[in-house]
Amino acid sequence: MRFIEKLAAAWRNNNSLICVGLDPDLARLPAHLGKNADGIFAFNRAIIDATHDLVCAYKPQIAYFAAYRAEDALQRTMDYLRTNYPAIPVILDAKRGDIGSTAEKYAAEAFERYGADAVTINPYMGRDSAEPFLAHADKGVVVLCRTSNPGAADLQDLDVGGRPLFELVAEQVAGKWNANGNCMLVLGATWPEQMTRVRAIVGDMPFLVPGVGAQGGDVEKLVRAGRTADGTGLVINSSRGILYASNGPDFAAAARQETLKLRELVNAYR
Amino acid sequence: MRFIEKLAAAWRNNNSLICVGLDPDLARLPAHLGKNADGIFAFNRAIIDATHDLVCAYKPQIAYFAAYRAEDALQRTMDYLRTNYPAIPVILDAKRGDIGSTAEKYAAEAFERYGADAVTINPYMGRDSAEPFLAHADKGVVVLCRTSNPGAADLQDLDVGGRPLFELVAEQVAGKWNANGNCMLVLGATWPEQMTRVRAIVGDMPFLVPGVGAQGGDVEKLVRAGRTADGTGLVINSSRGILYASNGPDFAAAARQETLKLRELVNAYR
Repeated sequence: MRFIEKLAAAWRNNNSLICVGLDPDLARLPAHLGKNADGIFAFNRAIIDATHDLVCAYKPQIAYFAAYRAEDALQRTMDYLRTNYPAIPVILDAKRGDIGSTAEKYAAEAFERYGADAVTINPYMGRDSAEPFLAHADKGVVVLCRTSNPGAADLQDLDVGGRPLFELVAEQVAGKWNANGNCMLVLGATWPEQMTRVRAIVGDMPFLVPGVGAQGGDVEKLVRAGRTADGTGLVINSSRGILYASNGPDFAAAARQETLKLRELVNAYR
Repeated sequence: MRFIEKLAAAWRNNNSLICVGLDPDLARLPAHLGKNADGIFAFNRAIIDATHDLVCAYKPQIAYFAAYRAEDALQRTMDYLRTNYPAIPVILDAKRGDIGSTAEKYAAEAFERYGADAVTINPYMGRDSAEPFLAHADKGVVVLCRTSNPGAADLQDLDVGGRPLFELVAEQVAGKWNANGNCMLVLGATWPEQMTRVRAIVGDMPFLVPGVGAQGGDVEKLVRAGRTADGTGLVINSSRGILYASNGPDFAAAARQETLKLRELVNAYR
């Protein structure tokens, strides 16, 4: 199934716009789990088992695996998701971007090696750097637009003919980049005004929204700013707020409670 | 030794501005080498042994290792370089960029896991996304500015108050980002005019220059555009043109010849 249809089905079936970000930080794993690749996989598996009926997607952050030489734990996590919860799409958060011949290798990493349904990419190098990802019409390509961090403004808000750069990015992506209808945009939860402007530019294109929870984004504002007419269009990610709700043996149950709470909060404003 | 001093010493000692890009493409490795991680490492080692006295840096492209599940071959390559040719700086080409907490993991990947002397990063997310790299004062941080690919123009040339975006990036990097004096910029060999303009903005900051060889950049123009007053300031990368000069058992000798030829060509215009 195409990523975009898989996402729509998960929105509907789990009545959820919530994405759980899998950012396994060894320093924050529950004490009873090993501080190694096995511990990371055990942690991810427990989080997934406890939340799979409450989410529309999972988003493993590859940096957390790369820093710990834990590619194997990422592979096992991806395989576990595909085998046990094939209806839930998985977005590999990698923010890749390079010249075409190299981007082909990164696309192979995301889609062939790890079997991701979608991957995040960086638009700075332009459309030809995105083509090797976009050409996979069945996969999702999630392009950075207005990110959640404070420094987002440094480049993304620069004034291009009276409009901020991120709006031009949104326009380019909604145009030629989206020929296969497989694009999404990253819009930080911390910037609801900017989200409103981008929603007006790109129609119903789904947004990946980081920045609730630990980063402090306001849920009501972001949902009102970003939802589409049918009350979907958003993949609202929380990582630390869910993963580390407890660092005791009850961490998975605590993660479930946080996910439930966030789902209900979001659904109240859809 | 700080990266920037190590680079200056390599420029001087090998009388060379040439960087060999290690992009091991399984489809193009010499037929007698295994199409696996061992073959990749054997290939890299032979290329390095044949060129180490002719270069100012090596630049492994991490995508080629990631696509083939060959992190081990990258680690062995980095270890081999550090053990046998500790005077040659190694730039890990990864083009990372993410929020601070994630960027810390990517910095750990580049500097701790692989022991790189420098890493390439993407500026789109702004200064706070670069800080975890910049904070390593002894390491080099190579920021994308005007890249070598045709699509570079899509974003990098957008008009910001009468100047192209990439000039604003150069200005930001040469300002606050460079507090530790450890920044470089990526300027594609294919755009000598843009390189001249950036050189005027950033003083003697070194440039990493991809795009000669397979991508067709003109050596005379780029050297005249980018060199500093002392005839250095450039790290001119060639990957495919050197690595795949021959695909027979003589590939390493052929790579040496190509490296020699490029070094002499560049030195003629310094």
